[in-house]
Amino acid sequence: MLTPQKVDTNSLFVTGQLNAVGVEVIRKTITGDERDLLAETVRAALGRAAIVLVTGGLGPTEDDVTRDAVSQALGRPLVFSPRLLAELEEKFRRFGRPMAENNKRQAYLIEGADALDNPRGTACGQWIEDGDRVVALLPGPPRELKPMVVHDVIPRIARRLPPLVIRTRLYRVAGMGESDLDALIAPVYTKFTNPATTILAAAGDVQIHLRARCATAEEAEALLAQCGDPIAELLGDRIYSTNGDPLEAVIGERLRAAGQTLAVAESCTGGLVGGRLTGVAGSSKYFLGGALTYTDAMKVKLLGVDAELLERHTAVSEAAALAMAEGVRAVTGADWGLAVTGEAGPEPATPAPVGTVFLAVAGPGGSEAQRVQFPGDRDRVRQWGTQAALNFLRRKLGR
Amino acid sequence: MLTPQKVDTNSLFVTGQLNAVGVEVIRKTITGDERDLLAETVRAALGRAAIVLVTGGLGPTEDDVTRDAVSQALGRPLVFSPRLLAELEEKFRRFGRPMAENNKRQAYLIEGADALDNPRGTACGQWIEDGDRVVALLPGPPRELKPMVVHDVIPRIARRLPPLVIRTRLYRVAGMGESDLDALIAPVYTKFTNPATTILAAAGDVQIHLRARCATAEEAEALLAQCGDPIAELLGDRIYSTNGDPLEAVIGERLRAAGQTLAVAESCTGGLVGGRLTGVAGSSKYFLGGALTYTDAMKVKLLGVDAELLERHTAVSEAAALAMAEGVRAVTGADWGLAVTGEAGPEPATPAPVGTVFLAVAGPGGSEAQRVQFPGDRDRVRQWGTQAALNFLRRKLGR
Repeated sequence: MLTPQKVDTNSLFVTGQLNAVGVEVIRKTITGDERDLLAETVRAALGRAAIVLVTGGLGPTEDDVTRDAVSQALGRPLVFSPRLLAELEEKFRRFGRPMAENNKRQAYLIEGADALDNPRGTACGQWIEDGDRVVALLPGPPRELKPMVVHDVIPRIARRLPPLVIRTRLYRVAGMGESDLDALIAPVYTKFTNPATTILAAAGDVQIHLRARCATAEEAEALLAQCGDPIAELLGDRIYSTNGDPLEAVIGERLRAAGQTLAVAESCTGGLVGGRLTGVAGSSKYFLGGALTYTDAMKVKLLGVDAELLERHTAVSEAAALAMAEGVRAVTGADWGLAVTGEAGPEPATPAPVGTVFLAVAGPGGSEAQRVQFPGDRDRVRQWGTQAALNFLRRKLGR
Repeated sequence: MLTPQKVDTNSLFVTGQLNAVGVEVIRKTITGDERDLLAETVRAALGRAAIVLVTGGLGPTEDDVTRDAVSQALGRPLVFSPRLLAELEEKFRRFGRPMAENNKRQAYLIEGADALDNPRGTACGQWIEDGDRVVALLPGPPRELKPMVVHDVIPRIARRLPPLVIRTRLYRVAGMGESDLDALIAPVYTKFTNPATTILAAAGDVQIHLRARCATAEEAEALLAQCGDPIAELLGDRIYSTNGDPLEAVIGERLRAAGQTLAVAESCTGGLVGGRLTGVAGSSKYFLGGALTYTDAMKVKLLGVDAELLERHTAVSEAAALAMAEGVRAVTGADWGLAVTGEAGPEPATPAPVGTVFLAVAGPGGSEAQRVQFPGDRDRVRQWGTQAALNFLRRKLGR
């Protein structure tokens, strides 16, 4: 876990399980297989937190130091358990494998520990209560860890907690940068510590998570409303989803409900808009396809855009975007045509500055275009342009 | 990073970079946006390690506490920098956005810190030397963090280390799964601890990194040849790049060198192939565009595919892929046509099982198709299908 390759997924799983019973994770530490350093980590953690979970390092080899380290941190000796040894020997008999001498290390328990059964491996877990604190030792392999967490650790933790209910709200927002959004809604959410507010931002996409923890569901919902309703009012139509759906799924829902179809014409995004739209399962119900027109000649040939128009306005223009949207709508017979054309850089091919993107939607009620300007490099302009195009379409589709 | 969802990838990247200059990571700590806890963490880390890197929490909002916490940990005040403020204002002017009042928080430096330039965002990094210890503050978004680590942090760290020469080799491989590849080359690389071998795999794309660390460059190069040459021989033409270029850049190079053009026809990938190809700066020199034909009707209309052929063979067939590739080549006038059609699921629309993908290339010397079968979900089939299509084209383009 201290290498450049190994992704830590155990802690995510454990966090999800803990959150579900109302326990917050305040600290994660990844440390090497070094006994003293690990012992110091466990001691420090017990000074801060009521529950300390240690994963990994319960195997039979020399570098499996967790038992020793926690024994040292708690000042409790390791005690040999004949019962555990008998169970280990039985497991090896059942697996039809000879038991190596060093597996006997796995038959030692920290004094006062409950052994937690591990049906999928040889390392049992350990649960140690120390006054109002708890330390649990859990195996590292996810397939051994997960059932032990679900069946043994979480129920034991839940029994020690006052009953608490967690309720959440999520707003996904497009068309607004993170700082502007924060400046707008911080006056609301900073008044609350419960619910807790987390803001996550990606290219042109901001997620606002509210999480309330209360004795009853009613109380939690009331707090969510107190904090969330004013936020929703401030953001209005910029909120595109409250159930976690991405923009392309929201668009899909609306098209499907209306029984309408969509086609796209992409220049600078080169397929990213289509790629996003077709990432939704069942998108063939409303998405027909479209044209990638990366050159002027292709805009003329595939979409019927007027060559003179391109000469007069260049391909990065409102006129070109409108002609592309109308063109793809006409060629495919879709109800809606969505077009993107812009300067992604690094070498601009038209007089428009890098980061300029024109979006256009052609629909049953006519056509409309929008100019947007993004900072940053090629990749960023294309990602933000894709998001802006989908959001422009969403607003034209209406509720 | 303390939620059940967010995977920590920054620390992996940073670890890789540190390892490459011979620095080991001994501890990673993930802590919340709480000033005192973070300050305590930094203080404790400085007691253990010569280099402490802190990522994230440099934004403009109230919950961005890293500057304050490290200031507290080091006992050094935050100092307002008129130069940083001027740079911030200039950035906002260039982006054409008004600067929010709270962005001024980003103009404060810890006393004695060097500001590290962040061309991709508003949060500058900070480099603070404190006796023989170093603390660096780095922005959280990977696209801002990575260039800062590569261009500023690692060179500054390397200057503080005893000289050691590092030489690397990289093979990028397509058309082979990670386990098969590993089974093939493990007999070679496991004989060496220097160079160190790292294998990274993504959808249909495997990277083999060799890193030799020696007193002299000659020694390092000799070790790389001893380990790398037999690997290259075993993999042969499956190696598509040794300079890190992705498949789409390799394809671009070949088309550019030959003065030829390319167009794509995508069904199940819905734009992902075009999106990859146009991610390369300058791709408009050889990529004309193409058609997204997500329905049978569009394959007929936009590509001139014979409707009877689709009825007879279905859209997920070798015949359909060939007709699409030839169709897009004819319609656009490109030298090469590349087509993808398949069943991405979850509900198959044809008799072909989910995960079946047909690729076809039409070129100056004729047409050829390939059937591939991928395991996994919709997203995986589309990603692997995209990679396989690009690799099929690469092999047809030749050297």
